[in-house]
Amino acid sequence: MALAFDVAGLTDYLHEIFPQVKDDFAIDAMDEHGLRMRLLTAERHLRPGGTVSGPSMFALADCAIYALILSRLGREALAVTTNCALDFMRKPAAGADVIAEARLLKLGRVLAVADVLMYSEGMAEPVARASMTYSIPPKR
Amino acid sequence: MALAFDVAGLTDYLHEIFPQVKDDFAIDAMDEHGLRMRLLTAERHLRPGGTVSGPSMFALADCAIYALILSRLGREALAVTTNCALDFMRKPAAGADVIAEARLLKLGRVLAVADVLMYSEGMAEPVARASMTYSIPPKR
Amino acid sequence: MALAFDVAGLTDYLHEIFPQVKDDFAIDAMDEHGLRMRLLTAERHLRPGGTVSGPSMFALADCAIYALILSRLGREALAVTTNCALDFMRKPAAGADVIAEARLLKLGRVLAVADVLMYSEGMAEPVARASMTYSIPPKR
Amino acid sequence: MALAFDVAGLTDYLHEIFPQVKDDFAIDAMDEHGLRMRLLTAERHLRPGGTVSGPSMFALADCAIYALILSRLGREALAVTTNCALDFMRKPAAGADVIAEARLLKLGRVLAVADVLMYSEGMAEPVARASMTYSIPPKR
Repeated sequence: MALAFDVAGLTDYLHEIFPQVKDDFAIDAMDEHGLRMRLLTAERHLRPGGTVSGPSMFALADCAIYALILSRLGREALAVTTNCALDFMRKPAAGADVIAEARLLKLGRVLAVADVLMYSEGMAEPVARASMTYSIPPKR
Repeated sequence: MALAFDVAGLTDYLHEIFPQVKDDFAIDAMDEHGLRMRLLTAERHLRPGGTVSGPSMFALADCAIYALILSRLGREALAVTTNCALDFMRKPAAGADVIAEARLLKLGRVLAVADVLMYSEGMAEPVARASMTYSIPPKR
Repeated sequence: MALAFDVAGLTDYLHEIFPQVKDDFAIDAMDEHGLRMRLLTAERHLRPGGTVSGPSMFALADCAIYALILSRLGREALAVTTNCALDFMRKPAAGADVIAEARLLKLGRVLAVADVLMYSEGMAEPVARASMTYSIPPKR
Repeated sequence: MALAFDVAGLTDYLHEIFPQVKDDFAIDAMDEHGLRMRLLTAERHLRPGGTVSGPSMFALADCAIYALILSRLGREALAVTTNCALDFMRKPAAGADVIAEARLLKLGRVLAVADVLMYSEGMAEPVARASMTYSIPPKR
Protein backbone atom coordinates (compact mmCIF):
# COMPACT_ATOMS: atom_id res chain seq x y z
CA MET A 1 0.00 0.00 0.00
CA ALA A 2 1.38 3.42 -0.92
CA LEU A 3 2.38 5.66 1.97
CA ALA A 4 0.48 8.92 2.27
CA PHE A 5 3.38 10.72 4.01
CA ASP A 6 7.14 10.63 4.33
CA VAL A 7 8.68 10.79 7.84
CA ALA A 8 8.97 14.58 7.83
CA GLY A 9 5.45 15.07 6.54
CA LEU A 10 3.90 12.67 9.04
CA THR A 11 5.89 14.24 11.88
CA ASP A 12 4.58 17.69 10.93
CA TYR A 13 1.05 16.40 10.72
CA LEU A 14 1.22 14.70 14.14
CA HIS A 15 2.58 17.90 15.68
CA GLU A 16 -0.30 19.80 14.11
CA ILE A 17 -3.03 17.50 15.43
CA PHE A 18 -1.38 16.46 18.73
CA PRO A 19 0.75 19.45 19.76
CA GLN A 20 0.86 18.19 23.35
CA VAL A 21 2.97 15.12 22.49
CA LYS A 22 5.47 17.00 20.31
CA ASP A 23 8.26 16.66 22.87
CA ASP A 24 7.44 13.08 23.82
CA PHE A 25 7.70 11.12 20.57
CA ALA A 26 9.73 11.09 17.36
CA ILE A 27 9.30 8.95 14.24
CA ASP A 28 12.58 7.24 13.43
CA ALA A 29 11.61 5.45 10.24
CA MET A 30 8.74 4.01 8.29
CA ASP A 31 8.20 1.90 5.23
CA GLU A 32 5.58 -0.43 3.77
CA HIS A 33 6.11 -2.92 6.61
CA GLY A 34 5.83 -0.69 9.64
CA LEU A 35 6.90 2.33 11.63
CA ARG A 36 9.51 2.93 14.31
CA MET A 37 8.78 5.58 16.94
CA ARG A 38 10.82 6.61 19.94
CA LEU A 39 9.78 7.87 23.36
CA LEU A 40 12.16 10.73 24.16
CA THR A 41 12.40 9.56 27.75
CA ALA A 42 12.44 12.46 30.22
CA GLU A 43 11.89 12.91 33.94
CA ARG A 44 8.11 13.25 33.48
CA HIS A 45 7.88 9.71 32.01
CA LEU A 46 9.53 8.03 34.98
CA ARG A 47 8.23 6.26 38.08
CA PRO A 48 10.01 6.35 41.42
CA GLY A 49 12.66 3.64 41.41
CA GLY A 50 13.76 4.68 37.95
CA THR A 51 11.62 3.07 35.31
CA VAL A 52 9.40 4.32 32.52
CA SER A 53 5.75 4.55 33.66
CA GLY A 54 2.99 2.33 32.34
CA PRO A 55 0.96 5.27 30.97
CA SER A 56 4.04 6.46 29.03
CA MET A 57 4.46 2.99 27.52
CA PHE A 58 0.76 2.89 26.65
CA ALA A 59 1.01 6.35 25.07
CA LEU A 60 4.02 5.31 22.99
CA ALA A 61 2.27 2.20 21.66
CA ASP A 62 -0.92 4.12 20.93
CA CYS A 63 0.89 6.96 19.20
CA ALA A 64 3.10 4.64 17.11
CA ILE A 65 0.13 2.65 15.85
CA TYR A 66 -1.93 5.77 15.25
CA ALA A 67 0.90 7.24 13.17
CA LEU A 68 1.23 3.96 11.28
CA ILE A 69 -2.46 4.00 10.37
CA LEU A 70 -2.29 7.66 9.33
CA SER A 71 0.73 6.87 7.16
CA ARG A 72 -1.58 4.70 5.05
CA LEU A 73 -4.84 6.60 5.24
CA GLY A 74 -3.60 10.17 4.97
CA ARG A 75 -4.71 13.48 6.24
CA GLU A 76 -8.47 13.22 6.35
CA ALA A 77 -8.48 9.99 8.30
CA LEU A 78 -9.91 9.46 11.73
CA ALA A 79 -9.05 6.45 13.86
CA VAL A 80 -10.25 5.79 17.40
CA THR A 81 -8.59 3.27 19.74
CA THR A 82 -11.20 0.71 20.76
CA ASN A 83 -9.10 -2.07 22.30
CA CYS A 84 -5.64 -2.56 23.68
CA ALA A 85 -3.79 -5.57 25.08
CA LEU A 86 -0.45 -4.85 26.72
CA ASP A 87 2.19 -7.11 28.24
CA PHE A 88 4.85 -5.56 30.43
CA MET A 89 7.72 -8.02 30.34
CA ARG A 90 10.86 -6.31 31.63
CA LYS A 91 11.70 -3.13 33.47
CA PRO A 92 12.53 -0.36 30.97
CA ALA A 93 15.82 1.43 31.62
CA ALA A 94 15.23 4.89 33.10
CA GLY A 95 18.08 6.50 31.20
CA ALA A 96 17.21 5.27 27.70
CA ASP A 97 14.67 6.15 25.05
CA VAL A 98 12.06 3.48 24.40
CA ILE A 99 11.86 2.31 20.78
CA ALA A 100 8.54 1.03 19.42
CA GLU A 101 8.46 -1.18 16.34
CA ALA A 102 4.89 -1.19 15.03
CA ARG A 103 3.50 -3.34 12.24
CA LEU A 104 0.09 -3.22 10.62
CA LEU A 105 -1.76 -6.54 10.64
CA LYS A 106 -5.07 -5.43 9.18
CA LEU A 107 -6.39 -2.28 7.60
CA GLY A 108 -10.04 -2.96 6.91
CA ARG A 109 -12.96 -0.75 6.03
CA VAL A 110 -14.04 -0.25 9.65
CA LEU A 111 -11.26 -1.77 11.82
CA ALA A 112 -7.48 -1.65 11.83
CA VAL A 113 -5.27 -3.95 13.93
CA ALA A 114 -1.57 -3.51 14.64
CA ASP A 115 0.96 -4.70 17.14
CA VAL A 116 4.13 -3.24 18.56
CA LEU A 117 7.26 -4.40 20.35
CA MET A 118 8.96 -1.91 22.65
CA TYR A 119 12.68 -1.91 23.55
CA SER A 120 14.86 0.19 25.82
CA GLU A 121 17.37 1.56 23.33
CA GLY A 122 20.48 -0.59 23.28
CA MET A 123 18.86 -3.68 24.82
CA ALA A 124 18.12 -6.81 22.80
CA GLU A 125 15.06 -8.07 24.67
CA PRO A 126 11.70 -6.30 24.40
CA VAL A 127 10.40 -4.56 27.54
CA ALA A 128 6.76 -4.66 26.45
CA ARG A 129 4.38 -5.63 23.69
CA ALA A 130 1.00 -4.26 22.72
CA SER A 131 -1.72 -4.99 20.20
CA MET A 132 -4.41 -2.45 19.46
CA THR A 133 -7.60 -2.15 17.45
CA TYR A 134 -8.78 1.12 15.96
CA SER A 135 -12.21 1.91 14.65
CA ILE A 136 -12.14 3.93 11.44
CA PRO A 137 -15.25 6.11 11.23
CA PRO A 138 -16.69 6.72 7.77
CA LYS A 139 -15.40 9.91 6.13
CA ARG A 140 -17.71 12.86 6.36
CA MET B 1 -10.20 -10.57 53.64
CA ALA B 2 -9.43 -7.85 56.15
CA LEU B 3 -8.46 -4.45 54.76
CA ALA B 4 -4.97 -3.24 55.64
CA PHE B 5 -5.94 0.45 55.36
CA ASP B 6 -8.93 2.74 55.61
CA VAL B 7 -9.50 5.33 52.83
CA ALA B 8 -7.52 8.06 54.56
CA GLY B 9 -4.62 5.74 55.36
CA LEU B 10 -4.43 4.31 51.86
CA THR B 11 -4.63 7.81 50.36
CA ASP B 12 -1.71 8.94 52.50
CA TYR B 13 0.29 5.89 51.57
CA LEU B 14 -0.32 6.36 47.81
CA HIS B 15 0.73 10.00 48.10
CA GLU B 16 3.88 8.89 49.86
CA ILE B 17 4.90 6.32 47.25
CA PHE B 18 3.49 8.06 44.14
CA PRO B 19 3.72 11.78 44.88
CA GLN B 20 3.44 12.60 41.18
CA VAL B 21 -0.18 11.36 40.91
CA LYS B 22 -1.39 13.14 44.05
CA ASP B 23 -3.41 15.68 42.07
CA ASP B 24 -4.72 13.19 39.53
CA PHE B 25 -6.57 10.58 41.56
CA ALA B 26 -8.69 10.34 44.70
CA ILE B 27 -10.09 7.27 46.45
CA ASP B 28 -13.83 7.69 46.93
CA ALA B 29 -14.61 4.50 48.79
CA MET B 30 -13.48 0.98 49.42
CA ASP B 31 -14.79 -2.12 51.13
CA GLU B 32 -14.31 -5.87 50.99
CA HIS B 33 -15.74 -6.00 47.46
CA GLY B 34 -13.74 -3.34 45.70
CA LEU B 35 -12.51 0.22 45.46
CA ARG B 36 -13.81 3.36 43.77
CA MET B 37 -11.26 5.87 42.50
CA ARG B 38 -11.82 9.12 40.63
CA LEU B 39 -9.71 10.86 38.00
CA LEU B 40 -9.78 14.53 38.92
CA THR B 41 -10.10 15.48 35.26
CA ALA B 42 -8.04 18.56 34.36
CA GLU B 43 -6.77 20.19 31.20
CA ARG B 44 -3.65 17.97 31.18
CA HIS B 45 -5.77 14.82 30.88
CA LEU B 46 -7.62 15.95 27.76
CA ARG B 47 -7.15 15.36 24.05
CA PRO B 48 -8.00 17.93 21.39
CA GLY B 49 -11.69 17.66 20.63
CA GLY B 50 -12.47 17.50 24.31
CA THR B 51 -12.14 13.99 25.60
CA VAL B 52 -10.07 12.27 28.27
CA SER B 53 -6.87 10.80 26.79
CA GLY B 54 -6.18 7.08 26.55
CA PRO B 55 -3.06 7.26 28.75
CA SER B 56 -5.10 9.03 31.46
CA MET B 57 -7.70 6.26 31.33
CA PHE B 58 -4.96 3.63 31.48
CA ALA B 59 -3.37 5.41 34.44
CA LEU B 60 -6.70 5.57 36.28
CA ALA B 61 -7.36 1.84 35.81
CA ASP B 62 -3.80 0.93 36.82
CA CYS B 63 -3.84 3.16 39.88
CA ALA B 64 -7.27 1.98 41.04
CA ILE B 65 -6.30 -1.68 40.81
CA TYR B 66 -2.91 -1.06 42.40
CA ALA B 67 -4.62 0.69 45.32
CA LEU B 68 -7.10 -2.17 45.59
CA ILE B 69 -4.29 -4.72 45.85
CA LEU B 70 -2.43 -2.60 48.41
CA SER B 71 -5.63 -2.31 50.46
CA ARG B 72 -5.39 -6.08 51.00
CA LEU B 73 -1.65 -6.62 51.15
CA GLY B 74 -0.61 -3.59 53.16
CA ARG B 75 2.44 -1.46 53.35
CA GLU B 76 5.30 -3.80 52.54
CA ALA B 77 3.69 -5.13 49.40
CA LEU B 78 5.05 -4.81 45.90
CA ALA B 79 2.92 -5.39 42.82
CA VAL B 80 4.03 -4.98 39.22
CA THR B 81 1.59 -4.67 36.31
CA THR B 82 2.30 -7.49 33.86
CA ASN B 83 -0.74 -7.46 31.60
CA CYS B 84 -3.58 -5.14 30.71
CA ALA B 85 -6.60 -5.47 28.42
CA LEU B 86 -8.57 -2.29 27.80
CA ASP B 87 -11.76 -1.59 25.88
CA PHE B 88 -12.62 1.99 25.05
CA MET B 89 -16.36 1.98 24.49
CA ARG B 90 -17.65 5.55 24.61
CA LYS B 91 -16.14 9.02 24.50
CA PRO B 92 -15.56 10.27 28.06
CA ALA B 93 -17.01 13.71 28.79
CA ALA B 94 -14.27 16.36 28.92
CA GLY B 95 -15.86 18.29 31.74
CA ALA B 96 -16.44 15.42 34.16
CA ASP B 97 -14.33 13.32 36.50
CA VAL B 98 -13.93 9.68 35.48
CA ILE B 99 -15.02 7.19 38.13
CA ALA B 100 -13.36 3.76 38.25
CA GLU B 101 -15.08 0.85 39.98
CA ALA B 102 -12.45 -1.84 40.58
CA ARG B 103 -13.06 -5.35 41.89
CA LEU B 104 -10.53 -7.99 42.84
CA LEU B 105 -11.02 -11.32 41.06
CA LYS B 106 -7.97 -13.16 42.33
CA LEU B 107 -5.31 -12.50 44.90
CA GLY B 108 -2.91 -15.39 44.63
CA ARG B 109 0.54 -16.03 45.94
CA VAL B 110 2.27 -14.71 42.79
CA LEU B 111 -0.48 -13.15 40.65
CA ALA B 112 -3.42 -10.83 41.28
CA VAL B 113 -6.20 -10.17 38.76
CA ALA B 114 -8.76 -7.38 38.89
CA ASP B 115 -11.09 -5.59 36.54
CA VAL B 116 -12.52 -2.10 36.44
CA LEU B 117 -15.41 -0.26 34.83
CA MET B 118 -14.93 3.45 34.17
CA TYR B 119 -17.73 6.03 33.95
CA SER B 120 -17.87 9.75 33.22
CA GLU B 121 -19.43 11.05 36.42
CA GLY B 122 -23.17 11.41 36.01
CA MET B 123 -23.48 9.05 33.04
CA ALA B 124 -25.05 5.60 33.29
CA GLU B 125 -23.08 3.76 30.61
CA PRO B 126 -19.41 2.86 31.10
CA VAL B 127 -16.88 4.65 28.90
CA ALA B 128 -14.21 1.97 29.25
CA ARG B 129 -13.33 -1.31 30.91
CA ALA B 130 -10.00 -2.81 31.82
CA SER B 131 -8.64 -6.02 33.31
CA MET B 132 -5.14 -6.21 34.67
CA THR B 133 -2.75 -8.77 36.07
CA TYR B 134 -0.11 -7.92 38.67
CA SER B 135 2.87 -9.98 39.63
CA ILE B 136 3.51 -9.98 43.37
CA PRO B 137 7.21 -10.44 44.02
CA PRO B 138 8.19 -12.43 47.11
CA LYS B 139 8.83 -10.27 50.17
CA ARG B 140 12.46 -9.66 50.91
CA MET C 1 -33.66 -2.65 25.75
CA ALA C 2 -36.40 -5.13 24.95
CA LEU C 3 -35.38 -8.76 24.59
CA ALA C 4 -35.96 -10.31 21.18
CA PHE C 5 -36.30 -13.84 22.62
CA ASP C 6 -37.22 -15.66 25.80
CA VAL C 7 -34.91 -18.45 27.07
CA ALA C 8 -36.75 -21.20 25.19
CA GLY C 9 -36.86 -19.22 21.94
CA LEU C 10 -33.19 -18.25 22.08
CA THR C 11 -32.23 -21.85 22.93
CA ASP C 12 -34.13 -23.10 19.88
CA TYR C 13 -32.54 -20.49 17.67
CA LEU C 14 -29.00 -21.32 18.86
CA HIS C 15 -29.63 -25.01 18.23
CA GLU C 16 -30.84 -24.14 14.74
CA ILE C 17 -27.78 -22.06 13.79
CA PHE C 18 -25.14 -23.95 15.83
CA PRO C 19 -26.36 -27.55 15.95
CA GLN C 20 -22.86 -28.74 16.85
CA VAL C 21 -22.89 -27.07 20.29
CA LYS C 22 -26.36 -28.29 21.25
CA ASP C 23 -25.01 -30.75 23.81
CA ASP C 24 -22.32 -28.42 25.16
CA PHE C 25 -24.21 -25.36 26.38
CA ALA C 26 -27.52 -24.48 28.00
CA ILE C 27 -28.99 -21.05 28.76
CA ASP C 28 -29.98 -20.90 32.43
CA ALA C 29 -31.47 -17.43 32.54
CA MET C 30 -31.48 -14.04 30.93
CA ASP C 31 -32.90 -10.62 31.60
CA GLU C 32 -32.19 -6.99 30.71
CA HIS C 33 -28.88 -7.11 32.62
CA GLY C 34 -27.27 -10.21 31.18
CA LEU C 35 -27.36 -13.90 30.44
CA ARG C 36 -26.28 -17.00 32.33
CA MET C 37 -25.05 -19.99 30.30
CA ARG C 38 -23.73 -23.32 31.49
CA LEU C 39 -21.12 -25.63 29.99
CA LEU C 40 -22.53 -29.13 30.38
CA THR C 41 -19.11 -30.44 31.31
CA ALA C 42 -18.40 -33.85 29.79
CA GLU C 43 -15.36 -36.01 29.16
CA ARG C 44 -14.63 -34.27 25.83
CA HIS C 45 -14.18 -30.90 27.60
CA LEU C 46 -11.49 -32.15 29.99
CA ARG C 47 -7.71 -32.07 29.97
CA PRO C 48 -5.56 -34.79 31.48
CA GLY C 49 -5.23 -34.14 35.18
CA GLY C 50 -8.91 -33.41 35.40
CA THR C 51 -9.66 -29.84 34.49
CA VAL C 52 -11.80 -28.12 31.88
CA SER C 53 -9.75 -27.29 28.77
CA GLY C 54 -8.93 -23.75 27.69
CA PRO C 55 -10.72 -24.10 24.34
CA SER C 56 -13.87 -25.23 26.17
CA MET C 57 -13.69 -22.16 28.42
CA PHE C 58 -13.16 -19.93 25.39
CA ALA C 59 -16.10 -21.56 23.62
CA LEU C 60 -18.34 -21.02 26.65
CA ALA C 61 -17.46 -17.33 26.92
CA ASP C 62 -17.88 -16.80 23.18
CA CYS C 63 -21.20 -18.63 23.04
CA ALA C 64 -22.59 -16.85 26.13
CA ILE C 65 -21.76 -13.42 24.75
CA TYR C 66 -22.98 -14.30 21.28
CA ALA C 67 -26.30 -15.44 22.75
CA LEU C 68 -26.49 -12.26 24.82
CA ILE C 69 -26.06 -10.10 21.71
CA LEU C 70 -28.63 -12.13 19.77
CA SER C 71 -31.06 -11.74 22.67
CA ARG C 72 -31.07 -8.00 21.92
CA LEU C 73 -30.68 -7.96 18.15
CA GLY C 74 -32.94 -10.84 17.19
CA ARG C 75 -33.03 -13.35 14.44
CA GLU C 76 -31.56 -11.53 11.46
CA ALA C 77 -28.50 -10.37 13.33
CA LEU C 78 -24.94 -11.28 12.53
CA ALA C 79 -22.09 -10.78 14.97
CA VAL C 80 -18.47 -11.77 14.42
CA THR C 81 -15.94 -12.09 17.27
CA THR C 82 -13.07 -9.69 16.57
CA ASN C 83 -11.23 -9.57 19.91
CA CYS C 84 -11.02 -11.58 23.08
CA ALA C 85 -9.10 -11.12 26.33
CA LEU C 86 -9.17 -14.05 28.73
CA ASP C 87 -7.77 -14.54 32.23
CA PHE C 88 -7.55 -18.04 33.62
CA MET C 89 -7.46 -17.59 37.38
CA ARG C 90 -8.22 -20.91 39.03
CA LYS C 91 -8.41 -24.54 37.99
CA PRO C 92 -12.00 -25.45 37.07
CA ALA C 93 -13.35 -28.53 38.79
CA ALA C 94 -13.50 -31.50 36.40
CA GLY C 95 -16.73 -32.84 37.79
CA ALA C 96 -18.79 -29.65 37.70
CA ASP C 97 -20.55 -27.60 35.05
CA VAL C 98 -19.02 -24.20 34.37
CA ILE C 99 -21.41 -21.29 34.77
CA ALA C 100 -20.85 -18.13 32.70
CA GLU C 101 -22.38 -14.83 33.81
CA ALA C 102 -22.27 -12.46 30.81
CA ARG C 103 -23.17 -8.77 30.82
CA LEU C 104 -23.42 -6.41 27.89
CA LEU C 105 -21.28 -3.27 28.22
CA LYS C 106 -21.90 -1.72 24.82
CA LEU C 107 -24.19 -2.43 21.92
CA GLY C 108 -23.25 0.07 19.25
CA ARG C 109 -24.01 0.38 15.59
CA VAL C 110 -20.88 -1.52 14.50
CA LEU C 111 -19.33 -2.94 17.69
CA ALA C 112 -20.62 -4.74 20.77
CA VAL C 113 -18.57 -5.33 23.93
CA ALA C 114 -19.40 -7.70 26.77
CA ASP C 115 -17.62 -9.43 29.60
CA VAL C 116 -18.18 -12.67 31.43
CA LEU C 117 -17.21 -14.29 34.72
CA MET C 118 -16.99 -18.08 34.78
CA TYR C 119 -17.48 -20.27 37.87
CA SER C 120 -17.29 -23.98 38.56
CA GLU C 121 -20.79 -24.68 39.81
CA GLY C 122 -20.91 -24.58 43.60
CA MET C 123 -17.70 -22.56 44.03
CA ALA C 124 -17.70 -18.93 45.12
CA GLU C 125 -14.56 -17.72 43.34
CA PRO C 126 -14.47 -17.27 39.55
CA VAL C 127 -12.23 -19.63 37.58
CA ALA C 128 -11.88 -17.31 34.59
CA ARG C 129 -12.95 -14.01 33.12
CA ALA C 130 -13.24 -12.87 29.51
CA SER C 131 -14.09 -9.73 27.60
CA MET C 132 -14.97 -9.85 23.93
CA THR C 133 -15.70 -7.49 21.08
CA TYR C 134 -18.03 -8.38 18.23
CA SER C 135 -18.33 -6.64 14.91
CA ILE C 136 -21.94 -6.27 13.77
CA PRO C 137 -22.07 -6.27 9.98
CA PRO C 138 -24.74 -4.10 8.36
CA LYS C 139 -27.95 -5.98 7.58
CA ARG C 140 -28.35 -7.10 4.02
CA MET D 1 18.92 -20.77 24.52
CA ALA D 2 19.50 -24.42 23.70
CA LEU D 3 16.50 -26.44 22.55
CA ALA D 4 15.51 -29.34 24.79
CA PHE D 5 13.94 -31.31 21.90
CA ASP D 6 14.08 -31.67 18.15
CA VAL D 7 10.81 -31.64 16.16
CA ALA D 8 10.34 -35.41 16.31
CA GLY D 9 11.10 -35.57 20.02
CA LEU D 10 8.78 -32.69 20.90
CA THR D 11 6.03 -34.17 18.74
CA ASP D 12 6.32 -37.50 20.57
CA TYR D 13 6.27 -35.76 23.92
CA LEU D 14 3.14 -33.71 23.07
CA HIS D 15 1.37 -36.87 21.90
CA GLU D 16 2.30 -38.52 25.16
CA ILE D 17 0.98 -35.75 27.40
CA PHE D 18 -1.93 -34.55 25.18
CA PRO D 19 -3.05 -37.67 23.30
CA GLN D 20 -6.41 -36.03 22.54
CA VAL D 21 -4.88 -33.39 20.22
CA LYS D 22 -2.69 -35.84 18.29
CA ASP D 23 -4.81 -35.57 15.14
CA ASP D 24 -5.35 -31.82 15.40
CA PHE D 25 -1.87 -30.31 15.37
CA ALA D 26 1.54 -30.94 13.82
CA ILE D 27 4.83 -29.16 14.43
CA ASP D 28 6.28 -28.02 11.11
CA ALA D 29 9.53 -26.49 12.29
CA MET D 30 11.28 -24.91 15.23
CA ASP D 31 14.52 -23.13 15.92
CA GLU D 32 15.95 -20.67 18.42
CA HIS D 33 13.56 -17.96 17.20
CA GLY D 34 10.24 -19.74 17.33
CA LEU D 35 8.01 -22.61 16.36
CA ARG D 36 5.62 -23.26 13.49
CA MET D 37 2.59 -25.44 14.16
CA ARG D 38 -0.26 -26.38 11.86
CA LEU D 39 -3.91 -27.08 12.54
CA LEU D 40 -4.79 -30.11 10.43
CA THR D 41 -8.14 -28.56 9.55
CA ALA D 42 -10.94 -31.13 9.50
CA GLU D 43 -14.73 -31.06 9.58
CA ARG D 44 -14.78 -30.95 13.40
CA HIS D 45 -12.89 -27.62 13.41
CA LEU D 46 -15.38 -25.81 11.17
CA ARG D 47 -18.32 -23.55 11.81
CA PRO D 48 -21.42 -23.50 9.60
CA GLY D 49 -20.71 -21.19 6.68
CA GLY D 50 -17.33 -22.75 6.19
CA THR D 51 -14.78 -21.18 8.49
CA VAL D 52 -12.49 -22.44 11.22
CA SER D 53 -14.09 -22.05 14.65
CA GLY D 54 -12.83 -19.64 17.30
CA PRO D 55 -12.13 -22.41 19.83
CA SER D 56 -10.01 -24.23 17.22
CA MET D 57 -8.00 -21.04 16.61
CA PHE D 58 -7.58 -20.56 20.36
CA ALA D 59 -6.47 -24.18 20.75
CA LEU D 60 -3.91 -23.80 17.95
CA ALA D 61 -2.40 -20.66 19.48
CA ASP D 62 -2.34 -22.20 22.95
CA CYS D 63 -0.80 -25.46 21.76
CA ALA D 64 1.84 -23.72 19.60
CA ILE D 65 2.98 -21.51 22.47
CA TYR D 66 2.89 -24.35 24.95
CA ALA D 67 5.09 -26.43 22.63
CA LEU D 68 7.42 -23.47 22.18
CA ILE D 69 7.87 -23.13 25.94
CA LEU D 70 8.40 -26.87 26.36
CA SER D 71 11.02 -26.77 23.60
CA ARG D 72 13.11 -24.58 25.92
CA LEU D 73 12.24 -25.99 29.32
CA GLY D 74 12.19 -29.68 28.55
CA ARG D 75 10.36 -32.64 29.85
CA GLU D 76 9.80 -31.85 33.51
CA ALA D 77 8.34 -28.45 32.86
CA LEU D 78 4.85 -27.33 33.73
CA ALA D 79 3.28 -24.24 32.21
CA VAL D 80 -0.26 -23.01 32.83
CA THR D 81 -2.01 -20.48 30.57
CA THR D 82 -2.99 -17.48 32.68
CA ASN D 83 -3.87 -14.84 30.08
CA CYS D 84 -4.72 -14.67 26.41
CA ALA D 85 -5.45 -11.79 24.03
CA LEU D 86 -6.76 -12.76 20.61
CA ASP D 87 -7.61 -10.72 17.53
CA PHE D 88 -9.64 -12.35 14.79
CA MET D 89 -8.86 -10.33 11.68
CA ARG D 90 -9.96 -12.28 8.62
CA LYS D 91 -12.10 -15.31 7.92
CA PRO D 92 -9.92 -18.45 7.78
CA ALA D 93 -10.41 -20.57 4.68
CA ALA D 94 -12.40 -23.73 5.46
CA GLY D 95 -10.41 -25.93 3.11
CA ALA D 96 -6.92 -25.03 4.32
CA ASP D 97 -4.74 -25.84 7.28
CA VAL D 98 -4.06 -22.93 9.63
CA ILE D 99 -0.38 -22.20 10.20
CA ALA D 100 0.72 -20.63 13.50
CA GLU D 101 4.05 -18.82 13.74
CA ALA D 102 4.90 -18.47 17.44
CA ARG D 103 7.77 -16.52 18.94
CA LEU D 104 8.91 -16.35 22.53
CA LEU D 105 9.11 -12.82 23.95
CA LYS D 106 9.98 -13.63 27.54
CA LEU D 107 10.95 -16.75 29.43
CA GLY D 108 11.24 -15.68 33.04
CA ARG D 109 11.46 -17.54 36.29
CA VAL D 110 7.71 -17.46 36.91
CA LEU D 111 6.13 -16.10 33.71
CA ALA D 112 6.58 -16.73 29.99
CA VAL D 113 5.09 -14.51 27.25
CA ALA D 114 4.80 -15.36 23.56
CA ASP D 115 2.81 -14.22 20.57
CA VAL D 116 1.62 -15.94 17.44
CA LEU D 117 0.40 -15.01 13.97
CA MET D 118 -2.00 -17.42 12.28
CA TYR D 119 -2.42 -17.83 8.52
CA SER D 120 -4.65 -19.92 6.30
CA GLU D 121 -2.09 -21.90 4.33
CA GLY D 122 -1.36 -20.23 1.04
CA MET D 123 -2.65 -16.78 2.03
CA ALA D 124 -0.34 -13.84 2.67
CA GLU D 125 -2.39 -11.95 5.26
CA PRO D 126 -2.77 -13.27 8.82
CA VAL D 127 -6.25 -14.43 9.86
CA ALA D 128 -5.62 -13.96 13.58
CA ARG D 129 -3.06 -13.02 16.18
CA ALA D 130 -2.72 -14.01 19.82
CA SER D 131 -0.49 -13.23 22.76
CA MET D 132 -0.43 -15.45 25.81
CA THR D 133 1.10 -15.54 29.27
CA TYR D 134 1.98 -18.77 31.03
CA SER D 135 2.73 -19.24 34.67
CA ILE D 136 5.62 -21.62 35.30
CA PRO D 137 5.15 -23.36 38.65
CA PRO D 138 8.29 -24.18 40.61
CA LYS D 139 9.61 -27.67 39.97
CA ARG D 140 8.73 -30.20 42.61
